[in-house]
Amino acid sequence: MSDDRLARQIAFLVEADRLKTILRRTPLVDRSRLENSAEHSWHLVLTAMVLGEYTTSGYDLLRVLQMVAVHDLVEIDAGDTFAYDEKGQTTRAARELAAADRIFGLLPLDQGARLRALWEEFEAQATPESRFAHAVDRFQPLLQNAFAGGGSWQEEGVTRDRVLRRMAPVESATPALWPTVLRIIESLIPR
Amino acid sequence: MSDDRLARQIAFLVEADRLKTILRRTPLVDRSRLENSAEHSWHLVLTAMVLGEYTTSGYDLLRVLQMVAVHDLVEIDAGDTFAYDEKGQTTRAARELAAADRIFGLLPLDQGARLRALWEEFEAQATPESRFAHAVDRFQPLLQNAFAGGGSWQEEGVTRDRVLRRMAPVESATPALWPTVLRIIESLIPR
Repeated sequence: MSDDRLARQIAFLVEADRLKTILRRTPLVDRSRLENSAEHSWHLVLTAMVLGEYTTSGYDLLRVLQMVAVHDLVEIDAGDTFAYDEKGQTTRAARELAAADRIFGLLPLDQGARLRALWEEFEAQATPESRFAHAVDRFQPLLQNAFAGGGSWQEEGVTRDRVLRRMAPVESATPALWPTVLRIIESLIPR
Repeated sequence: MSDDRLARQIAFLVEADRLKTILRRTPLVDRSRLENSAEHSWHLVLTAMVLGEYTTSGYDLLRVLQMVAVHDLVEIDAGDTFAYDEKGQTTRAARELAAADRIFGLLPLDQGARLRALWEEFEAQATPESRFAHAVDRFQPLLQNAFAGGGSWQEEGVTRDRVLRRMAPVESATPALWPTVLRIIESLIPR
């Protein structure tokens, strides 16, 4: 190993610590505070480990876990854009691209390229792994909102139609979870 | 799938949310607050993804990532026992065993057994995967303490010898990281 290589890896790992300060709109189940993107990413790893049997196509679990572990790192610079903030969503891609350049660029070239490719794969939603990762990334906050008694949707006045559209990756990647999704939406946002 | 099976998986995932409320002694790098065990677990996933090249024996990265994702779940009941709290360490094993029974017991039998086996493997430190996972579990807080300017050790009056003993898994599983460990300890706890 070269000292410079390790120094770059350490710089990246120390920078990653900042993801713990990026707040999402989802509350913890006990409603004591909002969730941050680092602990959310951990919860996705665990969710993917537990719910993989509901996917419709084969997938490589190692790639899924690595993908969800890095999928929010760009938020260190770009912030968490609320899923139902339409204006924020229009500028999200550009902000996150610049963030990916800087953050994955901290790593040695080969590793930075490998982790960035995982993030790009997640964003593109074109592989079974990224589709499952997206399903998990939708289902975990749904559960958390449900068990926290409504959470971010009720406060923000989010409509039923928008939540249904947002949850579409769950229906396509893990259709067996869809009745549960519908039941939760029904209970939180009555018609 | 049976409805009961999914209900158990959801109960486990919702219970896991509580790990976000378990505080460790390590501060975030910006010192704004203490780290919790959920975001710590995420940071270990990322650290294992980046530092695997320094291990001395082959290992299965998927098992390492799953192991670090579940390794602290027992703290939901047992709390985080500070590494340098000798009295707490004597009762830790019994408290964590009871916690494992309850928490992994929330899952369907097959999955509960599989995740519990990962936790037991981590605790036993008898496989290359668990040794690497332990090295990562020591190295990440070391980095964080170092970049936060001393963190939990200086406040608690922890001695150099105890930190060196605590870091032993880094030396055995990832010896190439050891000079960095020594340099950090040297700077934080002068002789």
